[in-house]
Amino acid sequence: MAASLRLCAAASGLRYWSRRQRPAAASLAAVCSRSMASKTPVGFIGLGNMGNPMAKNLMKHGYPLIIYDVFLDVCKEFQDAGEQVVSSPADVAEKADRIITMLPTSINAIEAYSGANGILKKVKKGSLLIDSSTIDPAVSKELAKEVEKMGAVFMDAPVSGGVGAARSGNLTFMVGEAEDEFAAAQELLGCMGSNVVYCGAVGTGQAAKICNMLLAISMIGTAEAMNLGIRLGLDPKLLAKILNMSSGRCWSSDTYNPVPGVMDGVPSANNYQGGFGATLMAKDLGLAQDSATSTKSPILLGSQAHQIYRMMCAKGYSKKDFSSVFQFLREEETF
Amino acid sequence: MAASLRLCAAASGLRYWSRRQRPAAASLAAVCSRSMASKTPVGFIGLGNMGNPMAKNLMKHGYPLIIYDVFLDVCKEFQDAGEQVVSSPADVAEKADRIITMLPTSINAIEAYSGANGILKKVKKGSLLIDSSTIDPAVSKELAKEVEKMGAVFMDAPVSGGVGAARSGNLTFMVGEAEDEFAAAQELLGCMGSNVVYCGAVGTGQAAKICNMLLAISMIGTAEAMNLGIRLGLDPKLLAKILNMSSGRCWSSDTYNPVPGVMDGVPSANNYQGGFGATLMAKDLGLAQDSATSTKSPILLGSQAHQIYRMMCAKGYSKKDFSSVFQFLREEETF
Amino acid sequence: MAASLRLCAAASGLRYWSRRQRPAAASLAAVCSRSMASKTPVGFIGLGNMGNPMAKNLMKHGYPLIIYDVFLDVCKEFQDAGEQVVSSPADVAEKADRIITMLPTSINAIEAYSGANGILKKVKKGSLLIDSSTIDPAVSKELAKEVEKMGAVFMDAPVSGGVGAARSGNLTFMVGEAEDEFAAAQELLGCMGSNVVYCGAVGTGQAAKICNMLLAISMIGTAEAMNLGIRLGLDPKLLAKILNMSSGRCWSSDTYNPVPGVMDGVPSANNYQGGFGATLMAKDLGLAQDSATSTKSPILLGSQAHQIYRMMCAKGYSKKDFSSVFQFLREEETF
Amino acid sequence: MAASLRLCAAASGLRYWSRRQRPAAASLAAVCSRSMASKTPVGFIGLGNMGNPMAKNLMKHGYPLIIYDVFLDVCKEFQDAGEQVVSSPADVAEKADRIITMLPTSINAIEAYSGANGILKKVKKGSLLIDSSTIDPAVSKELAKEVEKMGAVFMDAPVSGGVGAARSGNLTFMVGEAEDEFAAAQELLGCMGSNVVYCGAVGTGQAAKICNMLLAISMIGTAEAMNLGIRLGLDPKLLAKILNMSSGRCWSSDTYNPVPGVMDGVPSANNYQGGFGATLMAKDLGLAQDSATSTKSPILLGSQAHQIYRMMCAKGYSKKDFSSVFQFLREEETF
Repeated sequence: MAASLRLCAAASGLRYWSRRQRPAAASLAAVCSRSMASKTPVGFIGLGNMGNPMAKNLMKHGYPLIIYDVFLDVCKEFQDAGEQVVSSPADVAEKADRIITMLPTSINAIEAYSGANGILKKVKKGSLLIDSSTIDPAVSKELAKEVEKMGAVFMDAPVSGGVGAARSGNLTFMVGEAEDEFAAAQELLGCMGSNVVYCGAVGTGQAAKICNMLLAISMIGTAEAMNLGIRLGLDPKLLAKILNMSSGRCWSSDTYNPVPGVMDGVPSANNYQGGFGATLMAKDLGLAQDSATSTKSPILLGSQAHQIYRMMCAKGYSKKDFSSVFQFLREEETF
Repeated sequence: MAASLRLCAAASGLRYWSRRQRPAAASLAAVCSRSMASKTPVGFIGLGNMGNPMAKNLMKHGYPLIIYDVFLDVCKEFQDAGEQVVSSPADVAEKADRIITMLPTSINAIEAYSGANGILKKVKKGSLLIDSSTIDPAVSKELAKEVEKMGAVFMDAPVSGGVGAARSGNLTFMVGEAEDEFAAAQELLGCMGSNVVYCGAVGTGQAAKICNMLLAISMIGTAEAMNLGIRLGLDPKLLAKILNMSSGRCWSSDTYNPVPGVMDGVPSANNYQGGFGATLMAKDLGLAQDSATSTKSPILLGSQAHQIYRMMCAKGYSKKDFSSVFQFLREEETF
Repeated sequence: MAASLRLCAAASGLRYWSRRQRPAAASLAAVCSRSMASKTPVGFIGLGNMGNPMAKNLMKHGYPLIIYDVFLDVCKEFQDAGEQVVSSPADVAEKADRIITMLPTSINAIEAYSGANGILKKVKKGSLLIDSSTIDPAVSKELAKEVEKMGAVFMDAPVSGGVGAARSGNLTFMVGEAEDEFAAAQELLGCMGSNVVYCGAVGTGQAAKICNMLLAISMIGTAEAMNLGIRLGLDPKLLAKILNMSSGRCWSSDTYNPVPGVMDGVPSANNYQGGFGATLMAKDLGLAQDSATSTKSPILLGSQAHQIYRMMCAKGYSKKDFSSVFQFLREEETF
Repeated sequence: MAASLRLCAAASGLRYWSRRQRPAAASLAAVCSRSMASKTPVGFIGLGNMGNPMAKNLMKHGYPLIIYDVFLDVCKEFQDAGEQVVSSPADVAEKADRIITMLPTSINAIEAYSGANGILKKVKKGSLLIDSSTIDPAVSKELAKEVEKMGAVFMDAPVSGGVGAARSGNLTFMVGEAEDEFAAAQELLGCMGSNVVYCGAVGTGQAAKICNMLLAISMIGTAEAMNLGIRLGLDPKLLAKILNMSSGRCWSSDTYNPVPGVMDGVPSANNYQGGFGATLMAKDLGLAQDSATSTKSPILLGSQAHQIYRMMCAKGYSKKDFSSVFQFLREEETF
């Protein structure tokens, strides 16, 4: 998705960057408060499919890393690359005053921050803690409170873009924080992503990520419409062109079309390999569902999208790109 | 929607026009077969909200009209304007060899063509019959067969764009026919619309229209995502910008945003007045539902969108623009 | 389902039968108008999975049959059994003044009645035409009008109960007609079913059948609730008992439980063999969907049930009993 | 609902009671461990719409109460009735070794047990803590662990039946616990309910309650089917009878029919006053949704039911009985 995202950013261009300058300007003091910040080591906790390439992009920009992960082989890879590996999040906090966490679930994040050997056990005053995990906004707010008590700064900065964008350094970061530290975050996040978007108070980064529930809805809608149109006798390429000229157009129809043969260079052109897995989409939709329930927000289509990706995961689509929902529906034809 | 549609056409520019030239070139003969076609009268049956302004655009281009409508006052308006009014579709067919029909339902279309005093009773060999009604593709195919038996040509050419586009002559026509008469159709349709898209065999125009079911899905999805994000603390304008930079973007979020205050010049900025009424959306979704059932195509989200617009119509939203689904959901907040 | 249906009838007992007596009493004249009706031949059109055993039950009761079916081998079976086979619905109408039609779709029914060699071509005045097909109520009304013009009587009498009930003569017939011929219909339908229910004017039989959409909804709901409870640690049998003691109980939970091991003698105890196939349920839900759309009735859950059975059919569940939706959901577990 | 529930219990009769005897027999020792248990005071925390009448039924059976509620006026009512009121859950735990908690949400329950002045601060070894709140099963398990650490016993015992059943002492309790204390619980719960059902380990009581999600699904399904049938021309009473004779029958159709005029003595016969409010149903469905998401259980219809009750609450149905979903759909007719 990175490619299209970059294009989008370019398109909305100036407005977008000017939006970003204000906080940057406002927080020079904050940046200086960490002397020579740019060369001091950065802690990184969680080196999985996403965290691994993200950490390597920080290395490319010359940041020495303090590494922690539960999986030793992962740690060894970075140790061999000359980075320092420690044995707990607490130890990371002892050696680095800027830490990035990239963990799979809310539970893992809570453990890494508030656990027996968590960051909070040894975090230094004034430290900058950036959580790029995609978790429940309510959990982000809770962690922020605890971090604040220790005199440190917490921000949620979940990403969109998937593994490809993580490798190429083209992720989009959605940042929620008090704003006066936004520039300090940009310095590091800018090494891993092409878009760093300020979303508001802590938790709004997760909130913005959650709203990408719209992507799941429009992708399924595109798959349903393309499948129906093809059955009604339309040529797939022509149908895609008509949709993209009409008010039905969306990123899923004009940039990431799910129908094989309509576009090149997208997962549907490569048997739905790569891209953003159905499992990850199901997880994100679960978070959206939880937030909707707790805020009593009706999400009729969001709920259905959630259930559909749940089913796909169980029917052997877990690893396939989420646009494979077209294939999932298409099989229906074999009546 | 007309505005955005024009932009889209401009954007996809060349490819799109070249696509249109081929059939045009291929059918010069067909055009000439109606000597001086451009000045001979054109029949128009169905002068309702859409048909009325469409017919007037033909008048502006100097086409004399042969009018028929079940409502006499409507006929009188055109009679006073100097057009000829007759007393049945059959009489229209007797006086004109090019006829446009714009009727509300499949039943009305069947009556106008195959009824006791229908077009087919007096249609001339070689006549061009263009049905711009939005109806069941299966019915279009049936009518085409009957018309062919009489040695005339039938094409389905439903429109998108709504009343505003009908008035300004910026409709999009989706045309289904044997192709060799496409240019002949363009000559007339071009007076009423800014886009005339060739979709394939008879019925594919209706099929393409039906696929705009995707618009309903992405609009509801946008409303759900915006509503959820706002409840989670995001600023509506900022959220819209983030969505439009991300893979969740769609026409409903970047061109026709349903949240008041986010964009100017859209129905949501004007208490959802004007635009495309929820009732019309419900009707179109009903056709999509019928086609999906008859072709056994699964449309999980399309079905829900259909039911949601049904409910809105009954809760006092019939006349409001279809983007008022945001207001419909938002009321939920008053918990 | 027959077994439980019989129990139900017994339960609602008297009220139900008294309801049935009135029309019976009221129409003696009508019955007599067909002298010696009980021994004159009965026409039967459509000898498929359902029609075949139904016709045999008529034979058991001593009714000579006039048979027509498009499949010759089926006809031969009855010919060998001594029944008279003819070559068109029209020929059936020439030889019998009481005809039962049991056809798969609306199209087939229209063909059998109004086709080139249809019943109406040679139907005798005063004939009784009973259509047990499950079709669109609107089509039933159309056929009734045409039949009436010929001075004959038409009634819709769709069945519930499936193949098992057809064999054992325990079907439930839902009859729509002018009422004064109800007794004449009971004489024949009583040979094939244990319940013959008067529903109102022509078309209401189909309407009642359509309302069994509720069965699909409660079966899926039962499967979802049982699956969720089991995952939450409840014992399936205990959970079933609790549900059946509570306000959530329904026929699907207390008589036809979809979870293997909970009940004996139901399809879930036999790898979902036999019973009522998912394909048939999908077809019935399609009819419900069409009627809901044409009457603008919101069916949010009915629509989803329809889509779910559509998907099941394509995932290899077509032939399995419709309670296999539990297995369909359960597979989800293999996450 | 109490009435029908009693009937059900009677129906499933013996099996059900024998099921209940085993644990009872098995835990005599447990009971004796609280000498003269029957006359020692019982703690009661949470005297809301449900808790208030429940506590009064304990008083009727001669149990002195130790009361705590955040609302003083509620406490005063019991004080005037001669019961002892204390100022925190901790104080309740100091004065009573059997405590019943009846609180609105998971948060309230956590506060009452683990809060600064929570039960656990002063709970005595061997105390019996029964939580009748309807909350997340995961929370119940957490609380049980903490209680166990203090050497006390915790069980979850949510109820079904609503305010009416609470007043008449006809609630159904769904109990989750280690089983050897079941009899001890029955002694108290039997004063407030007519059914006390053992469900399994801690959390399974909540799980069973959650499965009543099936009630919401079948009620909406009944409303959709009745509404559709009526629009298709069926008489409501006749349609209800047909449904109840068929495999579509459920508690919502045969005992609590949502259509005015079909049954007497149900909320639909009284403008949907009394009964079980739509808000409470929406809350229970929210819990079901959370459990389904965390266990990755697909609940396609359950999710929709959840969203539908959310919308109803916002459209002015919050206080109406949940069967008013028929009215909610019916309004749709006013097209």
